Formats: sequence, structure tokens, C-alpha cells
Amino acid sequence: MPILSDKGLHIPPSPIRKLVPYAESAKRRGIKVYHLNIGQPDIPTPIEAVRAVQNVQDTVFEYGHSAGNESYRRKLVGYYKSVGIDVTPDDMIITVGGSEALFMTMSVCVNPGDEVLVPEPFYANYNGFATESGVNIKPIFSTIDNDFALPPMEEFERHITPRTKAILICNPNNPTGYLYSKEELEQLRDIVLRHDLFLICDEVYREFCYDGYQHFSVMNLTGVNEHVIMIDSVSKRYSMCGVRLGAMVSRNKQVIEAGLKMGQARLCPPYLAQVAAEAAIDASASYFKQVHDEYEKRRNCIVKALNDIDGVYCPMPKGSFYSIVKLPVKDAEHFAQWLLESFEYKGQTVMVAPGTGFYASLNLGHDEVRIAYVLKCEDLLAAAKCLEEALKVYPGTIR
Amino acid sequence: MPILSDKGLHIPPSPIRKLVPYAESAKRRGIKVYHLNIGQPDIPTPIEAVRAVQNVQDTVFEYGHSAGNESYRRKLVGYYKSVGIDVTPDDMIITVGGSEALFMTMSVCVNPGDEVLVPEPFYANYNGFATESGVNIKPIFSTIDNDFALPPMEEFERHITPRTKAILICNPNNPTGYLYSKEELEQLRDIVLRHDLFLICDEVYREFCYDGYQHFSVMNLTGVNEHVIMIDSVSKRYSMCGVRLGAMVSRNKQVIEAGLKMGQARLCPPYLAQVAAEAAIDASASYFKQVHDEYEKRRNCIVKALNDIDGVYCPMPKGSFYSIVKLPVKDAEHFAQWLLESFEYKGQTVMVAPGTGFYASLNLGHDEVRIAYVLKCEDLLAAAKCLEEALKVYPGTIR
Repeated sequence: MPILSDKGLHIPPSPIRKLVPYAESAKRRGIKVYHLNIGQPDIPTPIEAVRAVQNVQDTVFEYGHSAGNESYRRKLVGYYKSVGIDVTPDDMIITVGGSEALFMTMSVCVNPGDEVLVPEPFYANYNGFATESGVNIKPIFSTIDNDFALPPMEEFERHITPRTKAILICNPNNPTGYLYSKEELEQLRDIVLRHDLFLICDEVYREFCYDGYQHFSVMNLTGVNEHVIMIDSVSKRYSMCGVRLGAMVSRNKQVIEAGLKMGQARLCPPYLAQVAAEAAIDASASYFKQVHDEYEKRRNCIVKALNDIDGVYCPMPKGSFYSIVKLPVKDAEHFAQWLLESFEYKGQTVMVAPGTGFYASLNLGHDEVRIAYVLKCEDLLAAAKCLEEALKVYPGTIR
Repeated sequence: MPILSDKGLHIPPSPIRKLVPYAESAKRRGIKVYHLNIGQPDIPTPIEAVRAVQNVQDTVFEYGHSAGNESYRRKLVGYYKSVGIDVTPDDMIITVGGSEALFMTMSVCVNPGDEVLVPEPFYANYNGFATESGVNIKPIFSTIDNDFALPPMEEFERHITPRTKAILICNPNNPTGYLYSKEELEQLRDIVLRHDLFLICDEVYREFCYDGYQHFSVMNLTGVNEHVIMIDSVSKRYSMCGVRLGAMVSRNKQVIEAGLKMGQARLCPPYLAQVAAEAAIDASASYFKQVHDEYEKRRNCIVKALNDIDGVYCPMPKGSFYSIVKLPVKDAEHFAQWLLESFEYKGQTVMVAPGTGFYASLNLGHDEVRIAYVLKCEDLLAAAKCLEEALKVYPGTIR
């Protein structure tokens, strides 16, 4: 039997999904599982998008432009303008979700064996794209003690080698919920200029900032047009994770040109997704306001409920809809599996994503989990109650 | 300014699309361009697929299973059964077109620097996926002199090294139209068994076989379950190239497991595409019969018209809807560009894909082009007439 490639053998499993079989088994036993493990919002997709799909009248679902349909890119320019980002339709490649944008960016910017600095904890699938493109992720430690603020520049400097090609951040952050400030981003600008690095910023949660804080895009940093690549996706903005549409955005012409060649090899991004996304841009301001306020309310619900539990600490995130939560356990992955296998409270339990999957350093995250507050308050509170009761009886709880 | 990766700098441009700017310029000058360069059929997508999209009633377009929705995979099993291929829903990963299936297969099976043997000419985008995954394609010469039959096994044997990991073929073939017989495939089976290689077969054109010939799938070769990976796509079968849905199919559990991990990193294949493809499986037998007969008619039209031109040779393809055509010119790429830049016949011209893009060997294909017979007979004949008139006046025609 032929042997798989090293990649085939070593692509890390998704920490968000690896406990899925246990959740399915719990459901088969009649237990209600609250899913805090995955960022699948219950928010309705804008009706404009659903109607556009229902109104599709094509007789042939044809190939489109490899960079994405021109009509969609033109409209996207208008959307970006509305959030203060000034780009042209030629500054972007429409991709299959933010996922393809990340993989495309790593592939065209970083040679196999070269390094990308990423503050950890970070979005676990960065590991998958790095493995696929042969890129080495070098984690820069950030800590729950200051709610995962940007690590000091000395920490970045200390990790820069001749093989370092880029810094990758997610803002607002998945999994920590931290919102990097303009000042923090300017520190990163200085460092990428000094060392001639790419600055890759995953901004798919830009709509989700709370307490009146504003998102500042890397596209608005001055003097780094050739360095900056923004990753975008419609998944969370319009609650349409399943359509798989994103974008790689940059004013660096070489990056776009190389991305287009990769794009041509896979022909085009999905047509029906573009129909939905193009229409979603017409979603009303009140849609966003309602969604935003709902998430802020949910955040307030769950963060308070979690911090009320003995031994639990949850930072108050300023953005996205995730938080890393510290638990009074030694092995949060064991606890997460136990929650699904051996626990129930009034016929209910909760599924969380073990923290270790969000760290590259092996010794970190063992007492942490990531939660996504994508359920309504009532369910979030029920989930928190399950956690509280579980920690009372879990054999590994540290008291 | 940071420098791109080697991949970023060296992904080959698509030979199918590199002349597009010249075609656009011709159109701006009011010239009608017959597109024989790209396999974009004008055949309607099955009405069942269009209606399913119009009937979408979801309020949230959610993430689906990373291997593809179970309902779709179950239905696909039924489709495969109908074409004599016996698989289960667990033997496949639903992908973003055949493109992702090819890239996924190369990634999980072949280490960077290792080799895949491919008879040339071959589908040009194999080069793109190979570059992206760091795989070296080793071409095995096949020739228009025997209509691109499978090269003799000694040729394969001669190219096998300790780094050889797989043989990749496309059956029926894009770009040659050649249909490999069961006997030819059994020769490949013997060689992959002897050298413990993967056998990857791109079967996206299986519906398009002519003159009563039947397609034989690699999935029906005996004794090589662990070696065989089939690439599939709905693009051509249902004339829905734009939806981007395909599959990697294999009975090798390790391959599927590794593919699933890659699939989890990019979360899921596009949802709306799965809605369309699942419904398309209900397309009637008469839809396929009509499509099949139409392509056979077109093939007969264009092949005869081309062979009637002085100095032109076009093999009679038994499958797919492409053919490699030999022209009486030294530099077919120059000719193809000249057709768009400097020629018109009664306000019309034709776009073809230069042959060199389908070869890895630098010295081959210079007097060849690939055509796709995806237009109605009337247009194909008009396109052939343009070629005939062009060859009369093109300065580089060899007489």
C-alpha cells in the first residue's frame, strides 16, 4: 500500500471538530448539547441574499472570472468604502471563504520552510493552511493575564530570523475576542517596515466590535501598501458561513497578480455564493445594528455567567464573538470530552473547543477552552449552568 | 518591498486564459470571437438544479459537514451506482470543484519534490496544482500520430525513480479526447502494484463517450483499492462549471481520513452548490441522451471541418469534448494571438488555446492548439471557416 505524504499524515485535526463524534453520541442518548465550540451563528442570513438566490434565472451556471465576478467586486468596493477602506476592484481576489484567502496568501508570500509570526492563541486552522503550504508558524506568546493584548514588540523582534517572511494577526481576534488598537497596529507597521515583512490581517469580524470601540483596518495604515494583505469573508458578516466566499485584498500588485494565477488554476470562486454575497451587501443598516446589539447582549450574558462560576475566568472581549476561558481543571480537553461522554445536567450538556488546539506551543492552553457566543442568551445561560454543575462533579476540578 | 515566494513568482499562467485580454480587445473592436479555448458548455444546466436553487428556504446558510453534506453524499452514491461504480458515502470528500480534489490528492499523497507521472499533453491546470503542492510532474510523451493512445508501459517504467509516488491520468482525456480502454487501465494497474504507486484518475468527462464506446472507471480495477483515487466534478456532467463542486473518491481509508483533515481546515464545500448538484442527480435520462448526442454531432461537425483545411490534422476523439489539433504553423501561440489581434473574417475570429500550455516538455506542442467543441454546430463551422481563412493569410503558415 502506498504511503501518504508527510502532509497527508500530519495535517492537524481541527480542535473545533475533533470532539464531534462524542457530541453525536450524546445526542443519540437524548442529551441536548449546547454548541459553544464552533462559530456557527444562529443569526438569519440577510433576506436580500436569500431572495437573490431564489431569483436566480440563469439557464447555465457558467464559469466566472477567476478573481471573482466584476459586478461583485465593484459592489464590494462600495461596501469597503462604507467601512472606511478605499480599494479598487483590481485590489482583490475573491476566494472560497477566508480559508482560501489565507492559504493563497501563505502560498504566494511565504516559501516552504519560511516563518510567519502569529500571536498565540490563534485561529486553529492557521495550522492547517501552514501545513498545507509548508510554512512554519512561530507563535508569539500572548496571555490571558492582560486579556490577550498584542505582545510587546521586543517579543516579535526576538523571534525574527532571516527566514521570517510575515506577521499574521486576526483583528478582532478569534479565539480571544481582543480588538487590536490603531496604536498596536502602528507598532506592527513599524516592525514590518524595519524587517521588510508582509503584514497579513484577518479582519473577518470587523463588524463585531463592542462598547463603542471602532475597528481600525490594516488597509488604513500609511506607508505599508506593499506589505499589507487583508483577509476577508462574508461568513460571519452576513451569517452565511456555508456559502464559502471571502477575499484576499492588497494594494501590492505582485501579490494580486500571483493570487490571480493561483485563482486561474482553480478557475473561479463559486457562482451562487457570489449571487448571495452581492445581494447581502444591500442588507440594511438596521440589520447590522440588530445583529451587533444581539451579540453585545450575548457577550454580556455569558461573560458574567462564566465569571460567576468558582475558579473560572473569562476576559471581557471587545470584538468578534469568541473568548478564551480559563477553567479550574488541568486538562481541558479531557474535561470537554467528559462533558459529552459522562455528564448531563437535566438532560443537557455543553460542547466547548479545547484551548490547546489554539496554541502552537505544546505547554499552553491546557486549562483553557474557547467558547463562541453564537446562541441566544437563554441558551448561553443554560450552557453556563451546565458548566457550573459539571465543575462541581468533574473528578479533575481543582479546588 | 517584501519578495513573493517562489510559488508566488512561478505559478504558471493558465494557457486557456492568458490570451483573454486580446479577446477582450477584439470584442471592443466589434469583432465576434468564437471561444474554442475553454470548456464552458452552452448546454443548459438541468432544470432540476435551477429549481432547487430557486426553492432554497433556509433562514441561515450554515456550515455543512467538511466531507460534504450527508444527504448529497448518499445521493451521489446512487449516481455512482447508476454508472457501475460501487462506493459508500464514506469513500469520498466533496470538494470545491475537481480542482480542489486534485490539489487535495496531490497534497495528501505526494511529498514536495516527489514525482507524479502524467502522459502529456495534459490538462494545463495540473501544473498549477503541482506547483502549489510542490510536486514535480514528469511527463510521459504521447503523440498525435496514434491519436494520443496510452504510452507504452516501458516509457512509464523508464521514468519511475525512488521519488515517483503516483501516476495521474484523465479519462476521457482533456485535452486530447482520447478514451483509455479497460486493457490500457489494466496495464496501469499492474505498474502501480509493481511499484506501490497511487493511480489518480480524473474522470470528470465520463458521460462524454462517443461511437458507442463505454467508459471504464479505475474504481472497477480489481486488486488496487488502496492505490486508486478518482477525481470527479459536476461541472461538465450537469453543465454547471460555475458552482464549483467535485469529489475525491477512494476506498483507501487513509487517503479519505487525510483529505477530511484538509477539508476541516477549510471547513466545508459550498452549500448552495451542493443544493444544485444534489438536485441535478435527478436529471432525466433524456437530458443526458440529448446532451450526449449533441456533443457527438458537434464533434463530427468540427473534426470533419478541421480535417478539410489544408495542412490541419484533428484526431477523431472518442470522449470528452476537446481535441488537440495540429496546424501548419511553427508557433501556434503566436498564431492564436494574431487571430485575436490582427485578423478578422467577415467581422469574426476564433480563440483557441495554444498547445504548449498542455505540455511540460518545452519542445512540444508548438504546432498544436486545443479546441473545445462546446458551441453549436453552426458556430463551430463558422469558427472552422475563420481558421481556414486565417491560415490562408497568416504570414507564418507553412505551405
